[in-house]
Amino acid sequence: MQVIPVNLQERSYEIEISPGALDRAGVALASLGDVSRVVLVSDDVVDNLYGVRVAESIVDRGLDLDVIVVEHGEESKSIEVAYSLWEQLLELGADRKSVIAALGGGVVGDLAGFVAATYARGLRYFQIPTTLLAQVDSSVGGKTAIDLPKCKNIVGAFHQPSGVLADTTTLQDLSAKDYVSGLGEVVKYGVSLDSELFDMLERNVDAITSRDAQTLEKIVAKCCSIKSEIVAADERETSGRRALLNYGHTFGHSLEAALGYGAIPHGHGVLVGSILAARLAQRLGASGDARFSAIDDAWLDRQLALYRNLGLPTSLHDLGRDYGDAPETTPQRLVELMASDKKTEFGKLNFILPVALGECVYAKDVAADDALAVLR
Amino acid sequence: MQVIPVNLQERSYEIEISPGALDRAGVALASLGDVSRVVLVSDDVVDNLYGVRVAESIVDRGLDLDVIVVEHGEESKSIEVAYSLWEQLLELGADRKSVIAALGGGVVGDLAGFVAATYARGLRYFQIPTTLLAQVDSSVGGKTAIDLPKCKNIVGAFHQPSGVLADTTTLQDLSAKDYVSGLGEVVKYGVSLDSELFDMLERNVDAITSRDAQTLEKIVAKCCSIKSEIVAADERETSGRRALLNYGHTFGHSLEAALGYGAIPHGHGVLVGSILAARLAQRLGASGDARFSAIDDAWLDRQLALYRNLGLPTSLHDLGRDYGDAPETTPQRLVELMASDKKTEFGKLNFILPVALGECVYAKDVAADDALAVLR
Repeated sequence: MQVIPVNLQERSYEIEISPGALDRAGVALASLGDVSRVVLVSDDVVDNLYGVRVAESIVDRGLDLDVIVVEHGEESKSIEVAYSLWEQLLELGADRKSVIAALGGGVVGDLAGFVAATYARGLRYFQIPTTLLAQVDSSVGGKTAIDLPKCKNIVGAFHQPSGVLADTTTLQDLSAKDYVSGLGEVVKYGVSLDSELFDMLERNVDAITSRDAQTLEKIVAKCCSIKSEIVAADERETSGRRALLNYGHTFGHSLEAALGYGAIPHGHGVLVGSILAARLAQRLGASGDARFSAIDDAWLDRQLALYRNLGLPTSLHDLGRDYGDAPETTPQRLVELMASDKKTEFGKLNFILPVALGECVYAKDVAADDALAVLR
Repeated sequence: MQVIPVNLQERSYEIEISPGALDRAGVALASLGDVSRVVLVSDDVVDNLYGVRVAESIVDRGLDLDVIVVEHGEESKSIEVAYSLWEQLLELGADRKSVIAALGGGVVGDLAGFVAATYARGLRYFQIPTTLLAQVDSSVGGKTAIDLPKCKNIVGAFHQPSGVLADTTTLQDLSAKDYVSGLGEVVKYGVSLDSELFDMLERNVDAITSRDAQTLEKIVAKCCSIKSEIVAADERETSGRRALLNYGHTFGHSLEAALGYGAIPHGHGVLVGSILAARLAQRLGASGDARFSAIDDAWLDRQLALYRNLGLPTSLHDLGRDYGDAPETTPQRLVELMASDKKTEFGKLNFILPVALGECVYAKDVAADDALAVLR
């Protein structure tokens, strides 16, 4: 078992990662103390897989339990579903000693976290992430959100969980698509923030592709540890430090938006986006920008080799191969979408770009033409 | 002009109180720095009174301004109206440098504050309260909320404003009912938390009833100062200190709920509730509870005299006089409602009760029979 502390003063908490952690849900929830009831939120797919097991673990510790199951899929991150959850909490008589536990992937976590953040101005929130993406990404940082029809994650709150339990055996049950999507975030941490992780990934390609739960325990723990250091330094994304987590995201979000949300998984957008960002850094370095002088062909080849060995997409062409016809969009359209991204201030084009293996910078000054050139 | 600091570490802000403060909206908003646009949220009544004046003050400082007007009344504190505001912010292209400014009473403040707390995980929020209740109560503490059909304020967030501007000349425009409702909170601070304020109120009965803007500046400032000290010690209502602000609220909420929300204003419920709480303390003192030995007839008479001189209701009978027929409810029903109040933990009856002038305690151990006896 690995335990990663997230240090946020009075909002500090621990992430426990182990094969079999699901059975420790009751122990972990009871240890929060002063719990009047647990409301377990899950989706239909995850509930079928692990609902009974987690529920038994909670009831075995003598805790009162209610279960709310929503439909799987991004559509559940809506105001309508949040509204229904608020009303159900009211019916159930949830009070300030109640804990909302989210069992599932990013959708369930974001939704349940937002409802926990806003019901009675904030209930405690406990996460049991069952996808790789949720284990390495949304389990650290306290971002919760729901979508409006025209914009993802636009309504939300920062609400730190009281604890996180990640069971790496659940990753065996993921579809190839969801597993690759999670790996997208994992390699992102390696390439842009931690060369040690990158080395670890290179050395463990076989164990990663066979989803070995012990190896994944180490990798998930490493990712949580990397992210928790950054979040501790910039909890609410104000200093710019937290923005460094967004390597691959400027291109990635524009791909997601251009192809229609849900057409490709988030991690796939980030993966292809991270290669595009590396190519952009290489181009800027070749044009004399000294920050990116180390990003040469050899650097890019090493990144591409890892992606290919892990079976990850590296180009729009690959996305086309995996998701039917090559997605239809144009470089011009992608650049327009980047300019309207909510992280863009006053319309500038911003990217997180690599400067060495495991190191990146926030580049706020990139000309749209350079981004266009890389996309062509 | 009086300036009251609210000390909450990096969430600290100032409340500026003066006759004519409305015209300083632009200056105050511009001084926040790095403001891409101001979205002014108001209701139709308040917008008619002050909208143009405040808008001009903002535009005069060179700030981009959008105005959103909602219907006046508690009905606007709904998910539907919040949803519409989120969508309008998206349409307007609000970004993290946008500021939401609330011009109006508690409904507008609670609604706009909640939308600011949750849009893009938190925009800055600026308050321009135009009712006495909003100036002395919701301008300090960062509570924001909307209602569900079956429960007031149940969906919300703590979100501190970046600044508050209170213009005491706007109090001239309040209906008698709204003014009395605000005075309910004011005398609550005096009776339960600050004998100096109580003295000040006794000495200024005429200026208060004629709504003298200079006198009200001092009184509003005093109330904000009392509340800000308590909020600074217990920002998120966890230590119990902040609960001391709720003198009169246990009885008050049950009156509001029993008579139907909106049938009597919040402050009227608190006023009558605060007399009932004083009578309960007197009863407990007479039965030998040493904490309340100082709450005798003389104490109660002084409180009642101030209320009557200010024209405030002191009993259910008075509420009946002011709001048509005597409201129909029963002591039994009121006690039942108290037991289901969301502030009640595990079903105990909790009250804030006076122990001396300007001093109160949190009593968690009151028998329902004693509350019943006082209501009979």
